[in-house]
Amino acid sequence: MPKPTLHTCLSPSLLNVYDVSNSVVVIIDVLRATSTIAAALYNGAKAVVPVDSVQQCIQIGQQLNAITAGERDGKIVEGLQYGNSPLEYPRSFIEDRTLVLTTTNGTRLLHMASEKGAQQIITGSFPNISAVCNHLIACQQPVILGCAAWKERINIEDTLFAGAVIQRIESHFTIHCDASITAKNLYQQASTDCYAFMQQQGATHYHRLSNYGLENDIRYCLTADIANVLPIYQDGKLSVM
Amino acid sequence: MPKPTLHTCLSPSLLNVYDVSNSVVVIIDVLRATSTIAAALYNGAKAVVPVDSVQQCIQIGQQLNAITAGERDGKIVEGLQYGNSPLEYPRSFIEDRTLVLTTTNGTRLLHMASEKGAQQIITGSFPNISAVCNHLIACQQPVILGCAAWKERINIEDTLFAGAVIQRIESHFTIHCDASITAKNLYQQASTDCYAFMQQQGATHYHRLSNYGLENDIRYCLTADIANVLPIYQDGKLSVM
Repeated sequence: MPKPTLHTCLSPSLLNVYDVSNSVVVIIDVLRATSTIAAALYNGAKAVVPVDSVQQCIQIGQQLNAITAGERDGKIVEGLQYGNSPLEYPRSFIEDRTLVLTTTNGTRLLHMASEKGAQQIITGSFPNISAVCNHLIACQQPVILGCAAWKERINIEDTLFAGAVIQRIESHFTIHCDASITAKNLYQQASTDCYAFMQQQGATHYHRLSNYGLENDIRYCLTADIANVLPIYQDGKLSVM
Repeated sequence: MPKPTLHTCLSPSLLNVYDVSNSVVVIIDVLRATSTIAAALYNGAKAVVPVDSVQQCIQIGQQLNAITAGERDGKIVEGLQYGNSPLEYPRSFIEDRTLVLTTTNGTRLLHMASEKGAQQIITGSFPNISAVCNHLIACQQPVILGCAAWKERINIEDTLFAGAVIQRIESHFTIHCDASITAKNLYQQASTDCYAFMQQQGATHYHRLSNYGLENDIRYCLTADIANVLPIYQDGKLSVM
């Protein structure tokens, strides 16, 4: 039997060149949406509801009696309760609660993939990389690694995560995809210390977050398997099956 | 004085996130459009007219009494005279002639950049890399390295060329651009032998062209400074000033 295909989509602007409807799509927004989703679910959250706008966040938060969270420019948005940091969601706080989270890049890509009829949507980042890789190998379905990027621009951290996944699972897939080759090569240069790599290379998001004093967030988001669950998107929310 | 910015756009689908109107845009279609353009002009062609369609190619070819060229799927298109190989345009053939060339990816990106009002458009590939780099340094203007890609999908060879340019000229520019960092890192892994790198990594375009028996074209297109001229786009055609 031929191996299923794997492609890497480095920006939401490129999603329409891939056959989403036939694929398991991994939404990747390492800094910080998909790391925070993994953290909250790992620590016992019932579900995470990703929404596009602050208004939706407030409205759905009220409907579900849920925690609302979202940042813009590194600050909690007015009207919401918490921020985008994975460190804000320890078990003592988030267990058995629902989190309504508004982010820009990751949520947009997730909804795009959903509208295009993706067979399954999961979220991935370093904190849950093993759960993601094990699932993709087990599924034996075509895979699209979808990077959320930053305002459509390719970013280092999502590309690194795609490369890390490819390095782990490539023997199970047919990969005719130059973006995947590029991601894997980038990861191979960074793999001994992704944090130092981003710092040394001047990655844009490293600078953005470290200017807000969020180095600990970056370190968490680059740590493998620290929140190793598999968030699956169904009926508008992410939860662990 | 602050250094001008440099950005790398890895696919035409991403062009609209960059400020084209303020920039020198380098159109990069290494395999093979911008290598063939460099070859033809280096060998004395009066001009190269890039056109989108076969019909336009025939029509403008007649108007200008020019050579018409274009391939689809590795074969010369019916109604045109020559192909897309840089090796088809030696001085003995092309000197003082005009070449009307239809290609898909490179021509499309060039016309997009033109419609968006790019300050200047030039074409680049390994055969004219020094001419491109020297020009970009001399201009002291913002730069966008525009990769033609393959049907919107990022490709290795255009990314490698962007990386090679960045490695040479980065000290003259302000680079806050993760795509540029990615391209430079990819090139650093490939720089000792770009041909072997593409072969070993399974680059999609390497396979496509080598299936057509075009290994010599690939080797030419990856050879630095073998046709070291600066093609500048003006009034619908590329020529050397």
